[in-house]
Amino acid sequence: MVSDQSPGGRGSGPMSRRDLLTLIGTVAGSAVMYEAMSSMALAGESGYTGPIKLTGDPKGASVLILGAGMAGMCAAYELRKAGYKVQILEYNDRAGGRNWSLYGGDTYTELGGAVQKVGFDKGLYLNPGPWRLPHHHYAVLHYCKLLGVALEPFVQVNYAALLQSDKAFGGKPKPYREVQADFNGYVAELLAKCTQQGKLDEAVTKEDREVLMGAMREWGALDKNYEYKKGLLTSDRRGYVSDPGGGLTSVPTPSEPIAMTELLQSGLWAAIAAGHGYEFQNMIFQPKGGMGMIGKAFGKELDGVITYDAKVIDIHQTDNGVTATYVNSKTGGPPKTASADWCVCTIPASVLSQIPMNVGNPMQNAIDALYYDASIKVGLQFKRRFWEQDNAIYGGISFTDQPNSMIGYPSTDYFSDGKGVLLGAYTFGPNAFLYAAMSPEERVAKTVEYGAKLHPQYKEEFDNGVAVAWHRVPWTLGCAGHWTEELRAQHYDDLCAIDGRIVLAGEHASRIPAWQEGALLSSLDAIRRLHQRVMTA
Amino acid sequence: MVSDQSPGGRGSGPMSRRDLLTLIGTVAGSAVMYEAMSSMALAGESGYTGPIKLTGDPKGASVLILGAGMAGMCAAYELRKAGYKVQILEYNDRAGGRNWSLYGGDTYTELGGAVQKVGFDKGLYLNPGPWRLPHHHYAVLHYCKLLGVALEPFVQVNYAALLQSDKAFGGKPKPYREVQADFNGYVAELLAKCTQQGKLDEAVTKEDREVLMGAMREWGALDKNYEYKKGLLTSDRRGYVSDPGGGLTSVPTPSEPIAMTELLQSGLWAAIAAGHGYEFQNMIFQPKGGMGMIGKAFGKELDGVITYDAKVIDIHQTDNGVTATYVNSKTGGPPKTASADWCVCTIPASVLSQIPMNVGNPMQNAIDALYYDASIKVGLQFKRRFWEQDNAIYGGISFTDQPNSMIGYPSTDYFSDGKGVLLGAYTFGPNAFLYAAMSPEERVAKTVEYGAKLHPQYKEEFDNGVAVAWHRVPWTLGCAGHWTEELRAQHYDDLCAIDGRIVLAGEHASRIPAWQEGALLSSLDAIRRLHQRVMTA
Repeated sequence: MVSDQSPGGRGSGPMSRRDLLTLIGTVAGSAVMYEAMSSMALAGESGYTGPIKLTGDPKGASVLILGAGMAGMCAAYELRKAGYKVQILEYNDRAGGRNWSLYGGDTYTELGGAVQKVGFDKGLYLNPGPWRLPHHHYAVLHYCKLLGVALEPFVQVNYAALLQSDKAFGGKPKPYREVQADFNGYVAELLAKCTQQGKLDEAVTKEDREVLMGAMREWGALDKNYEYKKGLLTSDRRGYVSDPGGGLTSVPTPSEPIAMTELLQSGLWAAIAAGHGYEFQNMIFQPKGGMGMIGKAFGKELDGVITYDAKVIDIHQTDNGVTATYVNSKTGGPPKTASADWCVCTIPASVLSQIPMNVGNPMQNAIDALYYDASIKVGLQFKRRFWEQDNAIYGGISFTDQPNSMIGYPSTDYFSDGKGVLLGAYTFGPNAFLYAAMSPEERVAKTVEYGAKLHPQYKEEFDNGVAVAWHRVPWTLGCAGHWTEELRAQHYDDLCAIDGRIVLAGEHASRIPAWQEGALLSSLDAIRRLHQRVMTA
Repeated sequence: MVSDQSPGGRGSGPMSRRDLLTLIGTVAGSAVMYEAMSSMALAGESGYTGPIKLTGDPKGASVLILGAGMAGMCAAYELRKAGYKVQILEYNDRAGGRNWSLYGGDTYTELGGAVQKVGFDKGLYLNPGPWRLPHHHYAVLHYCKLLGVALEPFVQVNYAALLQSDKAFGGKPKPYREVQADFNGYVAELLAKCTQQGKLDEAVTKEDREVLMGAMREWGALDKNYEYKKGLLTSDRRGYVSDPGGGLTSVPTPSEPIAMTELLQSGLWAAIAAGHGYEFQNMIFQPKGGMGMIGKAFGKELDGVITYDAKVIDIHQTDNGVTATYVNSKTGGPPKTASADWCVCTIPASVLSQIPMNVGNPMQNAIDALYYDASIKVGLQFKRRFWEQDNAIYGGISFTDQPNSMIGYPSTDYFSDGKGVLLGAYTFGPNAFLYAAMSPEERVAKTVEYGAKLHPQYKEEFDNGVAVAWHRVPWTLGCAGHWTEELRAQHYDDLCAIDGRIVLAGEHASRIPAWQEGALLSSLDAIRRLHQRVMTA
């Protein structure tokens, strides 16, 4: 929000925010103005307080960064800009880490040796890791803008998407719109009934009760008797058997609501709030061409800074600096070393706990204590975009209680002919372990089987697939750090605190775990503290 | 939905839908396959039953079409394809009718003579008429595909958008996310309370009550005591004072819910259901570059068929044909005539009621009885996209109880630098008449004043604007046909029935008034009946 108060404070006199921006703009050009604008507008709203400013000369200090994921590359970019000498060691032969898209022709080898060659058509992809950028994830949006990564809307909630349970309606899916309309309708009807019968008289004032009745009627699509009933009113929410039309063949046929008992017992209502959580609220974005575009752009920006195929096997600090020992992650070969005055380590705790590193007990215990979530994603290519052509589902997510948990429809290239790639499965917890225990081929086959209950077209249209089980990804051994409240109270500050010359960063060192925003904010906080230490050393 | 039953029916034997499609595809190429697919998939779901098929030879019969809007051009396109000789008379110097975008450099003269020259930057536009294409408006999506009109997502619901009332919170806007979260939360809390206290025992079984309690807790973000309270749980719905972050500066500050009384009395909850109506449910699309792209593409497709600047002043039918008399809509000049065997008249009833036409009383009475809705739209260009840069509002709609009713943010060119055009006002009814009574300049100035209560940036950033009041649009004299239940019962069938050699079409001759889908479905129904009459004549 904009305030017209002076942002300068003491001594700057009465100057409006806009005056100041105009002044900055005139003096220093639009790039600075953009920075200033971002930092002022967002201050106090978000963990992200605008583009970082590391002032003061680090006088040639060097920083070794472990991991070219979002946290590592953010650190390298900003520290280099502030005058540090930086280098990154990266396990993979590409930049991005979990910021990753798999395209046709890519090869992926998981722990255990199973190799998958991706068979997608040109332009189609799976994001095995993150796939969404909420509109309030200011840091990641800032870097997308900075790096020239083009964004497009990601669709979370789609009223034509399906909700399916093997335990309800004979396994037949229901459209989101029906379940949402009926759930809201019955909730409104029940609450209106209570209100009308005087059962809320203690909790709600008379004036509020009247408003509440009106609100229930409008929000719940209740009739004049405050009932949720089959008719045009409710069909305008839950859909019609046949829609209104034109001319003389235009009378619509209303649809029959699901009975309340069936709806409640189906459990399908659980999916309604899926778009209500902070991270899932419209608008959400995705990079055009795949999430991996951010990692790619960051890597290009850091050309020459990153050593690829470098598997770190030892991290050692002294009073004067830090040395990492690494081998080629593909060929092994003789160990090499990289040294610097300071180290930002973004290696996931799941992997880091297996690498010798001389830090104190508090940090080591924190690293060892952090458990990593299991998660899997399966991408399926189909011969045509039947979900659009047959079901009018353009983007969004269908939910199921089968082990694949959801089907994500591509939020891009709508109405296009040719093949399409779905997210056929995205699940956590026990289902993810179930999946991880299978071979990639089995994972894909099972996912096709599950999905066919929502889309019978699966069987005829399936083309090929790829499956990533995060516990089998060699460089993360899991999806993301899983903090319980207890773990966090005990270990989080120790994980984040600088130990000698080493500081950790990444989504695991944040309070937005599993999100790229968490990785970036963690990195910005870590380098801010590191820089402060360098400046005061 | 797909069924594997034979669509052919009698005598075609056991052939799956897919087999049939493959056969059609092999025999006749992909265009036919696309048509067949659409028609089968959609049959029984919508008023649109797939691409129209007018079989049989009309033997050189001719059709005069009045109006090159969506209905008129659809009729011309399909009738020409079926072998008819067609021509269109159009009042404007462009195709599209209410399918219309105003761009920089355009000039628009309203009834009364006020001229507006649009001052928008290149690429920016206002859609004075329709601006949304719901995913289930199959006919309009079909023609977009057919005409090669590129579509992009239109955002209806945005959790960062604002709700504002002069009567609540001192006129200060609240984000949609806060109002939705608090409304759901209090509804859930109240219903859970009733359930817990045994007040629903008659209405809901014991088993259902348990599920309902769980549902209210999950959906409403209630705590373990089924209360909606300040905390991280509710902030994950309504937003935080400061968001969770990374590293050591990451502890979020929860926000305080609005008190229930204030929320109910504010009336802001009325906006929550705005995305729940059938036409406003995700996904929705818009043509890239403005809604007018459809009209443009249709007009290009019908090159040579349309006579522009033709103001119809008389329509006369005999037993053998129909003759329309017209003058140049800009210069007047000598009347000309156009004749054909049949006539599809898509002139809005508001205008048509003033044109002499020898039809029977039933149709004439219907035309005269139909009232047209008042509506206005105001487009405002600003020097920068402050709603994105300062408020993180990317697309979507803010609502207000001021006369402008809403602010629509552009669902395109997100994150772009430079200027941007907002829909500053879009309103119906009394507010629209209020607006129509002002000069265009006053309308724009008022809209800036209203909007500044939601966005203080308006005052400094405003650049220029354009205002279209539909009751002052010379070629419609209103926005769209307004049918009451009584009017429809009395006149609708008479309006749609063929009178001699004349049939009417347009959104007013449909049960989806004010939507392009209605215009198209009306047109398809009208020409189907006309063709049948020609074939059996």
